[in-house]
Amino acid sequence: MDNQKKALVLSSGGVDSTTAMAIAKSEGHEIYSLSFSYGQRHSLELESALKVARFFGAVKHLVIKIDLRVFGGSALTDAIEVPKERSAKDMERDIPVTYVPARNTIFLSYALAWAEVLGISDIFIGVTAVDYSGYPDCRPEYIEAFEKMANLATKAVVEGTTRIRIRTPLIALSKADIIRRGIQLGVDYSITHSCYDPAPDGRACGRCDSCILRRKGFREAGIADPAQPA
Amino acid sequence: MDNQKKALVLSSGGVDSTTAMAIAKSEGHEIYSLSFSYGQRHSLELESALKVARFFGAVKHLVIKIDLRVFGGSALTDAIEVPKERSAKDMERDIPVTYVPARNTIFLSYALAWAEVLGISDIFIGVTAVDYSGYPDCRPEYIEAFEKMANLATKAVVEGTTRIRIRTPLIALSKADIIRRGIQLGVDYSITHSCYDPAPDGRACGRCDSCILRRKGFREAGIADPAQPA
Repeated sequence: MDNQKKALVLSSGGVDSTTAMAIAKSEGHEIYSLSFSYGQRHSLELESALKVARFFGAVKHLVIKIDLRVFGGSALTDAIEVPKERSAKDMERDIPVTYVPARNTIFLSYALAWAEVLGISDIFIGVTAVDYSGYPDCRPEYIEAFEKMANLATKAVVEGTTRIRIRTPLIALSKADIIRRGIQLGVDYSITHSCYDPAPDGRACGRCDSCILRRKGFREAGIADPAQPA
Repeated sequence: MDNQKKALVLSSGGVDSTTAMAIAKSEGHEIYSLSFSYGQRHSLELESALKVARFFGAVKHLVIKIDLRVFGGSALTDAIEVPKERSAKDMERDIPVTYVPARNTIFLSYALAWAEVLGISDIFIGVTAVDYSGYPDCRPEYIEAFEKMANLATKAVVEGTTRIRIRTPLIALSKADIIRRGIQLGVDYSITHSCYDPAPDGRACGRCDSCILRRKGFREAGIADPAQPA
């Protein structure tokens, strides 16, 4: 199989990256799934990422352990409390405390390394600049700059064997659009996980930014959420 | 002390990064030293990096463990044999097997995260495009592209509090020039380490690319190497 048909997909086990993986699969790519264990408060994300990789018949699913806690600075990795019941307007206005410094840059850098070793051109990342504009590293201009840098960074590029494409099929889609697209492609969202702050038994809190956006997305799509009943 | 006066310096404990740190210090910066434990065959590099951080009175020295071995693809992290006795011409022509995929991209991404948390603008990296042009991620166009990406990537940038500068004071210097500059600045090169493949007792092999370039540099600078006698 030619290398154009392999895709590396960054996967968090959530709605967005799972839909990005479905899109990569629908284009005929073989899937190489890459997840990170980065001091999340819980391992549910990683369990979902594994289920998602299996669902799409990934050739390989790699989990890289990185420790962003050494830097501090985020509710997702530190002991700062995850904010609850924020309005969509609050989320749009403020850069959230759940922001991890340079997270997508670090994730994409590892993806670049693996892509080079595997001879893969297409790196899929499920960022969206629509519903959640608070993260600077989800914007199109950031992604374009990363892609440009990546194409100067590696041996494969210099030797002319690979050109890196950072694929962001969701970047202009709302959460509802993402879910509609995924349902069209046969995604089983019951295996995905979104909550930043789940209960000890694994149930979603329903009140963090991620739960609120997920619920709003399913509601606007007119679809019942199989993982987190409203 | 104002944040303009803090510098984050990527340090390997070798000649180049140590000289870059000396230059950062000479500009009046407080030093934050960042090293990586990435499956090197030996820990001498990290011991040297710690000595160097102490030498320059670093405010903090952080070692981040990352596992580039999961990807394979380099003599520095895999079981491929380190090449010996290569000519300078061979080194210039070929991308060396000691190349680690996307290494500087991953290192600089972590540096970016830490810089954001610390509110640091200046990230020093001791790359040089002169003596050793085989690494694509040591070229000025790569560094410029990374800097551009970095300035779109983070909260601090979006909020206008920090602008990232990737500082490469050695990029146009030969190894001899680097050593001359370091000696002017009072660097004690006896605490540095360069060899890719040291003996069990820690002695440099004298025959790997890094030893050859180091010896050539000291010879051309007309200075005796205090760490690796010729």
